[in-house]
Amino acid sequence: MTEAIKQHEQWRGKIEIAVRADILAPGALAVAYTPGVAEPCLEIQKDVSRSFDLTRRWNTVAVVTDGTAVLGLGDIGPEAGMPVMEGKAALFKAFADVDAIPLCIRSKDAEEIARTIALLSGSFGGINLEDIAAPRCFEIEALLKEMCDIPIFHDDQHGTAVVTLAGLTNALKVVGKDKSSKILISGAGAAGCAIAELLFADGFDDITLMNSRGVIRADEEQSSERLNNLAKITNKRDVKGGLDVAIVGMDVFIGVSAPNILKPEMVANMAKNAIVFACANPTPEIMPDLAKAAGAAVVATGRSDFANQINNVAAFPGIFRGALDARAKDITQQMNLAAAYAIAGLVTDEELNAEYIIPNALDMRVPKAVAVAVQTAAIKN
Amino acid sequence: MTEAIKQHEQWRGKIEIAVRADILAPGALAVAYTPGVAEPCLEIQKDVSRSFDLTRRWNTVAVVTDGTAVLGLGDIGPEAGMPVMEGKAALFKAFADVDAIPLCIRSKDAEEIARTIALLSGSFGGINLEDIAAPRCFEIEALLKEMCDIPIFHDDQHGTAVVTLAGLTNALKVVGKDKSSKILISGAGAAGCAIAELLFADGFDDITLMNSRGVIRADEEQSSERLNNLAKITNKRDVKGGLDVAIVGMDVFIGVSAPNILKPEMVANMAKNAIVFACANPTPEIMPDLAKAAGAAVVATGRSDFANQINNVAAFPGIFRGALDARAKDITQQMNLAAAYAIAGLVTDEELNAEYIIPNALDMRVPKAVAVAVQTAAIKN
Repeated sequence: MTEAIKQHEQWRGKIEIAVRADILAPGALAVAYTPGVAEPCLEIQKDVSRSFDLTRRWNTVAVVTDGTAVLGLGDIGPEAGMPVMEGKAALFKAFADVDAIPLCIRSKDAEEIARTIALLSGSFGGINLEDIAAPRCFEIEALLKEMCDIPIFHDDQHGTAVVTLAGLTNALKVVGKDKSSKILISGAGAAGCAIAELLFADGFDDITLMNSRGVIRADEEQSSERLNNLAKITNKRDVKGGLDVAIVGMDVFIGVSAPNILKPEMVANMAKNAIVFACANPTPEIMPDLAKAAGAAVVATGRSDFANQINNVAAFPGIFRGALDARAKDITQQMNLAAAYAIAGLVTDEELNAEYIIPNALDMRVPKAVAVAVQTAAIKN
Repeated sequence: MTEAIKQHEQWRGKIEIAVRADILAPGALAVAYTPGVAEPCLEIQKDVSRSFDLTRRWNTVAVVTDGTAVLGLGDIGPEAGMPVMEGKAALFKAFADVDAIPLCIRSKDAEEIARTIALLSGSFGGINLEDIAAPRCFEIEALLKEMCDIPIFHDDQHGTAVVTLAGLTNALKVVGKDKSSKILISGAGAAGCAIAELLFADGFDDITLMNSRGVIRADEEQSSERLNNLAKITNKRDVKGGLDVAIVGMDVFIGVSAPNILKPEMVANMAKNAIVFACANPTPEIMPDLAKAAGAAVVATGRSDFANQINNVAAFPGIFRGALDARAKDITQQMNLAAAYAIAGLVTDEELNAEYIIPNALDMRVPKAVAVAVQTAAIKN
């Protein structure tokens, strides 16, 4: 038996419920429960928004999966996704004091999943979608944004995009480049699409998107409406072909795709002072030492054992903290951009270098800074 | 503003999430989250039952309402039911260390509610239905028992029945009567039906069931299949009419109905040494002093400010503790009977008297005794 399984058996769950109300004190039960509890109930009946004051709703987020795209493991089933959801819930609490409820849904039907979550949405102050396969996850997110009046956030998309932009902002500073840089995103699933969109929202405009079949092109029908839209605004030089062709002359490679697909000779064909974000987990698109030897100036991965870890944990706890504190009804691109700038801003100009473009994943300043930035952006919205 | 609302605003939720895994310790994140968490995920993919060892599922119960029959307040809406669900969750934890997740569903359609819960059932070790109006609650419970492989328990029915039977068992001892006693149950909703069924399961056989329209009779079409079935086996003396007629000669009155409907002259018309359980909340069917003055030998209510409180909190925490510990797939009448006997058994023959037929609601021996009895019964099943 492996260490991780042993440890999980010892934990018997990474989170549990704690009681905030001292219900065993004399007389307390008559307030927390019958008959006293009738009064907050009637208060909420009169004005549903009071559920954010009189219950834990103001601080509670559902972390929901269907188990179809768990880590890099693929479709392993709803219950099998729950160790990740519990881990996420533990991170929500430890990093941002958000109470997150792990839930898995036994369905692969986008409408059924969305309806299930929407029917429960009165229980929560926000919904974090997690590890749901593309393109179904796009449809679920879009449906939920229509159906619900609380923030909906698909972390695999937007959390990844926020942290990637944070790292990229600082990496470009290191090499002295700007938003006119040529960006190649490898991986056109949930994360790749969201990264492209957030970079456009931030003012980047030379983005090429590709998947294992090659560069996403406007003259080919894509698997989702979203990808069709991205096809129209990406691939400015009308490139056709695979990674070996697409990589030539690029300033930035962002990989959210597959292990070991970026070869040293491809990195050598990138522009001078190239930036390589090889974020496939656990094995990156290229190992940092190989990328550097081939000429990359800045390298980041998803791993904690190399410098510059692109880890969603920098984003989601603080984003929800800020959204909940603002009682936001949505998480907008403005809020995501604010989160990215807040993360990037924690690395001072003095500290900034090719081996330190992003704060450590356990740096507790991060969720606080993100929360304040997101709350401020939400109030401005 | 009332005290209860003030207190709820201060609590800002009666429960919250606590982290069990020390995920901020060096290296812990790599076990609790990526990449280590992949191993328990894959283990559960191979064998879904392992979700009971490797996540909190073994100890987690959903407390679910649609908000249609909250306390005595009626259909006040899903969010408005949540202060009760949170209170219940706090009691689950404080009394039996069960982690309960409060959920409300924005639907009044039995099939939709059942489907929603069933789709989520991989997240939980059990489901506690709560404050759902009859007869919809019967259909939801029946559907869920078909659809799920974890215990389904509608507390308003079975919790109430268990505690009522516990009290009745001891009350009969006080007055020296037995299971041949004539029982009148006022209220033919969720609680009334479940009480009748549990009493039959315990060997009582002279039960009359009535609602505000009079005695439930086999020659009249009832509002549910369940009530039709009960109509066939109740009302042995073929009585027709209201409470004034039905009460005559009864040994036991069990009220789960409406305030102040049992008049002193009706109590006077009961058999000698009558037992009156007036459990309507917060105002009982008759006040204890009036019932006693009219000749009742033992009186119980649902209130903590009188002797003999019939309170579900004696039942549900221990029942789920026992069911979860046994990893039961259902909660059977045998388990409910075991729970009732365990509660009754905590009052010794020396202690037993007309003013003390049931342990105090805060007596911590109760959930422990109930859990052991229910676990034992589950294993026997």
